Amino acid sequence: MNKILVTGASGFIGRQLLPLLAGRGFEVIGVSRRAPEQTPGWRHVAGDLLDAAFVADLTARERCTHLLHLAWIATPGVYWTSPDNLAWTAASLGLAAAFAANGGRRLVVAGSCAEYDWECGFLSEGRTPCRPATFYGQAKDGLRRLLAAYCPTVGLSFAWGRVFYTFGPGEDRRRLAPGVVLPLLAGRPAPCTHGRQVRDFLYIEDLARAFVALVDSAVSGCVNLASGQPLAVADLIAALARQAGRPDLPPLGAIPLSEAEPPLLVADVRRLHREVGFAPVFSLEQAVARTVNWWAGQEGRADRCE
Amino acid sequence: MNKILVTGASGFIGRQLLPLLAGRGFEVIGVSRRAPEQTPGWRHVAGDLLDAAFVADLTARERCTHLLHLAWIATPGVYWTSPDNLAWTAASLGLAAAFAANGGRRLVVAGSCAEYDWECGFLSEGRTPCRPATFYGQAKDGLRRLLAAYCPTVGLSFAWGRVFYTFGPGEDRRRLAPGVVLPLLAGRPAPCTHGRQVRDFLYIEDLARAFVALVDSAVSGCVNLASGQPLAVADLIAALARQAGRPDLPPLGAIPLSEAEPPLLVADVRRLHREVGFAPVFSLEQAVARTVNWWAGQEGRADRCE
Repeated sequence: MNKILVTGASGFIGRQLLPLLAGRGFEVIGVSRRAPEQTPGWRHVAGDLLDAAFVADLTARERCTHLLHLAWIATPGVYWTSPDNLAWTAASLGLAAAFAANGGRRLVVAGSCAEYDWECGFLSEGRTPCRPATFYGQAKDGLRRLLAAYCPTVGLSFAWGRVFYTFGPGEDRRRLAPGVVLPLLAGRPAPCTHGRQVRDFLYIEDLARAFVALVDSAVSGCVNLASGQPLAVADLIAALARQAGRPDLPPLGAIPLSEAEPPLLVADVRRLHREVGFAPVFSLEQAVARTVNWWAGQEGRADRCE
Repeated sequence: MNKILVTGASGFIGRQLLPLLAGRGFEVIGVSRRAPEQTPGWRHVAGDLLDAAFVADLTARERCTHLLHLAWIATPGVYWTSPDNLAWTAASLGLAAAFAANGGRRLVVAGSCAEYDWECGFLSEGRTPCRPATFYGQAKDGLRRLLAAYCPTVGLSFAWGRVFYTFGPGEDRRRLAPGVVLPLLAGRPAPCTHGRQVRDFLYIEDLARAFVALVDSAVSGCVNLASGQPLAVADLIAALARQAGRPDLPPLGAIPLSEAEPPLLVADVRRLHREVGFAPVFSLEQAVARTVNWWAGQEGRADRCE
């Protein structure tokens, strides 16, 4: 039986993804610093991946065939420039080596659209140059280059899933969708940028499914995990506002858009569809409805606690 | 007073370099696993840089302003493809972060001509693409990208000195110059390749001087540490054979040259000369004489021990 170790188990992607892996026939171990509330179909191990001794002990004890490495610094507003990106890069190299030394066979790591040269707009694995504009992007780019060179020397199968934009239940409250939905649900205005920038959003449950499909394939190298659908941020905001019942309250343009934000970022998803065999199952309307309803439930729970 | 930590202190470059740094006004600490025979003008610390606890302790205790990082896996015939390149990359990232966290100001690291696309032949810092043909080159390339992105986030000054080809006293006996000189001194034939490949050789004492000049400058980014002089390998072999008194004994062409060896690799040294202000002091004839005489002395010592 294949046995998989997933890092970042209590994160935004990890929480959606771990139950899916169990359904795919894997024995599943999720690692994160804090234990999540529920672990349906998988086993949790608490620990700090920046602690080399913990990593050595974990990999030697569990001897997993598969490793899906999602953990990274992800604090909104901080992770783009934090020096901690270096510590996560070094820890990821150590984790990969320890996994390989303990019987590991297939390694899949979360990359980012931030590795690409954003000026290119349409971002394609085989064609678009990697020229990261941020330290976060440079760290992911550097890690990928090193692992792609390392894995063949020890016989590891290796794939790199590039995450684009996403939203859904369990997102950090400082990010876009909750930043719009939570004020609206409370009847307050949600200040936004003009929203004309076009991005590629894949709903979190579909993103988790895409990672599972990549892990459970033999595809190697880089794969964009995205929708391939251009969506103006203003259109996503409008859909969230409609679902929250307050289409009047997002004042577009109240927040200036950074000069560093490119006008369009859309993924080429042909590799994902043709080679990994993945297609999203949630429409934008379904994704927005599930997201807003989940936040409404959370706020209801918070109200009851007060 | 500036205080410098040098890794790889007992290595081929380190042994030549450490006494020069003391003469330049640095307080000098050299680290390596084994203590060298002599430490003129500097202090030795024994330890393993792959041990994170040792690195944490060393950097916190010494609090150096400068770090010159030369240590790496260098076993001839092994280092090009060894998975250990990943461990050295991860350890180097950890060392840089620990140095920065303990008052470090300037970081200089040994890179390699193996980072470049060798098909380009004339290798220039600002113009030639990095497309390493080996895992060793990919690891150095990845480390450089990561450190170049990281250092500005913590205010570190950063330079990367690319080593090309070198020879001189103290070289590993399995490498080119001792592989020619030692058999000849013993009166035996020294089998060689055809030697028509052109390379850029900088004598080891000049290479050490180039590193010292780079460390003691404010130059940042990549600098080729090389002679800029094209030299056919056969011409170096002939010079070594003449100095050893046996010009008859190197049978050129007895060893096939790998298909992977490009016909010409020569450095653009304009940055080194104009910005770092370095020029070699040893002619090829002087370098060859010092090298052969040193090996003759070593063999004499070995004879006396027998």
